[in-house]
Amino acid sequence: MAAGNKHSLLVVGSIAFDSIETPNGSVADALGGSATYFSYAASFFLPPRLVAPVGEDFPDEHRQLLIGRGVDASGLVTLPGQTFRWKGRYHHDMNTRDTLEVHLNVLGSFKPDLPERFRDSTHVFLANSGPVLQARVLDQVQHPELVLADTMDLWIESERPALLKLLKRVDGLLLNDSEAQLLTGDDNLVRAGKAVRRLGPKFVILKKGEHGAMLFMQDDVYVMPAYPTEEVIDPTGAGDSFAGGILGFLASDAGAAPGSLRQAMAYGAVIASMTVEGFGLERLKRTERSEIDDRLKKYRAMLSF
Amino acid sequence: MAAGNKHSLLVVGSIAFDSIETPNGSVADALGGSATYFSYAASFFLPPRLVAPVGEDFPDEHRQLLIGRGVDASGLVTLPGQTFRWKGRYHHDMNTRDTLEVHLNVLGSFKPDLPERFRDSTHVFLANSGPVLQARVLDQVQHPELVLADTMDLWIESERPALLKLLKRVDGLLLNDSEAQLLTGDDNLVRAGKAVRRLGPKFVILKKGEHGAMLFMQDDVYVMPAYPTEEVIDPTGAGDSFAGGILGFLASDAGAAPGSLRQAMAYGAVIASMTVEGFGLERLKRTERSEIDDRLKKYRAMLSF
Repeated sequence: MAAGNKHSLLVVGSIAFDSIETPNGSVADALGGSATYFSYAASFFLPPRLVAPVGEDFPDEHRQLLIGRGVDASGLVTLPGQTFRWKGRYHHDMNTRDTLEVHLNVLGSFKPDLPERFRDSTHVFLANSGPVLQARVLDQVQHPELVLADTMDLWIESERPALLKLLKRVDGLLLNDSEAQLLTGDDNLVRAGKAVRRLGPKFVILKKGEHGAMLFMQDDVYVMPAYPTEEVIDPTGAGDSFAGGILGFLASDAGAAPGSLRQAMAYGAVIASMTVEGFGLERLKRTERSEIDDRLKKYRAMLSF
Repeated sequence: MAAGNKHSLLVVGSIAFDSIETPNGSVADALGGSATYFSYAASFFLPPRLVAPVGEDFPDEHRQLLIGRGVDASGLVTLPGQTFRWKGRYHHDMNTRDTLEVHLNVLGSFKPDLPERFRDSTHVFLANSGPVLQARVLDQVQHPELVLADTMDLWIESERPALLKLLKRVDGLLLNDSEAQLLTGDDNLVRAGKAVRRLGPKFVILKKGEHGAMLFMQDDVYVMPAYPTEEVIDPTGAGDSFAGGILGFLASDAGAAPGSLRQAMAYGAVIASMTVEGFGLERLKRTERSEIDDRLKKYRAMLSF
């Protein structure tokens, strides 16, 4: 980034080869993973810093794709072995999926160490991983201004104490509806979201897939529908693209205005709606900032009355 | 209504005794039915005209409740026999329910004949019933300006030709997500909604329960989330309250402005969010127009960014 810009955005997460089956077709070994989708989405706003492990099988072509988007890939660590692999199948309604295979490979033993020059990052996304690892990343960031963490049912069930400890240290938590219900034991999403916020985070973003998202901040609740699209080809990466749009916008100069979190979520929703319109990164590769801004404008008009 | 007001709103539907079980409790023989919820919701905007059959067991207290709201109940016909009865049980998530008992009673043989003075109605809600009956009502309205019809899976499956014929005659169709999928054979809600609109109606409102609604008008798609509430006590009547808020607002003087359909839907969403906060009409009975307007204001703020 240009010297003088006071914000910088760090993501620590996964890079994967995804094999995906949907009612519309399938794809094998597509570039995916939380850090990939997040940083690609964020790159429409500013060049993000990426930390993630890959195996010796990771092609230079993928690295160049990210670098071509302005991603600072100096935290892309090549470890002995294979890159993380995931295989899944979406059901007919595209809202639910079965995981067919998971091979953690290099991700299994990865202990993130931030490059020295990443330690002054102002905005941080702790993509889904164990809360102990997420805390370890946080320990290495000197003066974070805004930390957003993602989590999943696995950690809620198996590492609840560590997760609760982490929640006292982050500004925002991102989780989906069933995870909020699991974490709080409350089926009503409004009550569940408020209860998660009382566990520590200043704000909670509750994802509802094709039904949009809710934001809990102080005692207020906001709801946002998903941007409606006719072409749901592959939902993989929607959540991480959403997060990338949110933090990308917030870390950009425009996002520093007060009350911009909802505009950031709108950008996230718009980018996520594009992600699902193709397999893997296919659709995001075909877009540019102006198309995102056009869709944001339509989204805003759609919600005003 | 005062002479000189050019709009009048007619609903033809059902009046029921509902017995409802939810995880939060239960209620027996509560006043319900599509025409009841619709007209109660619409009465916050203007005094609606109601046509529906009841049995000899229908207490005067219920009739007085509606008349007290300004409802013109001269189309409330008492027939020999019992009032329509429905019994249902909501599942834990409050989004799905099982019908335990249906006794059509007087509803089974009801053939709606509009009182002479209702035939000049400008706005018409054809609540859920067979499309042949709905067409029969429409035949009796002289110069309707806006006709909205509701339907359900039963008619889509058993009376499709009559339903398709009706769709050429109405301005708007209200149906839920699974019904749109059933009617069009398309799982994607954006494509399904557009396909329903091509069957005839100028606009289609697709209900998604706690996830809100979508509006299809010309080639445009609008999405609206449900107003989030912590107190989902009983979802019965939410859809008909939604419709009552929509047509009530549109038939009121304020609703005559161009582009007011979305504001009408916002009113509908707000009233529906109140309906679900109590059993039967319990919560609506405790509200007044100023509280509805306050919630509308919050809803609008919630959706702007």
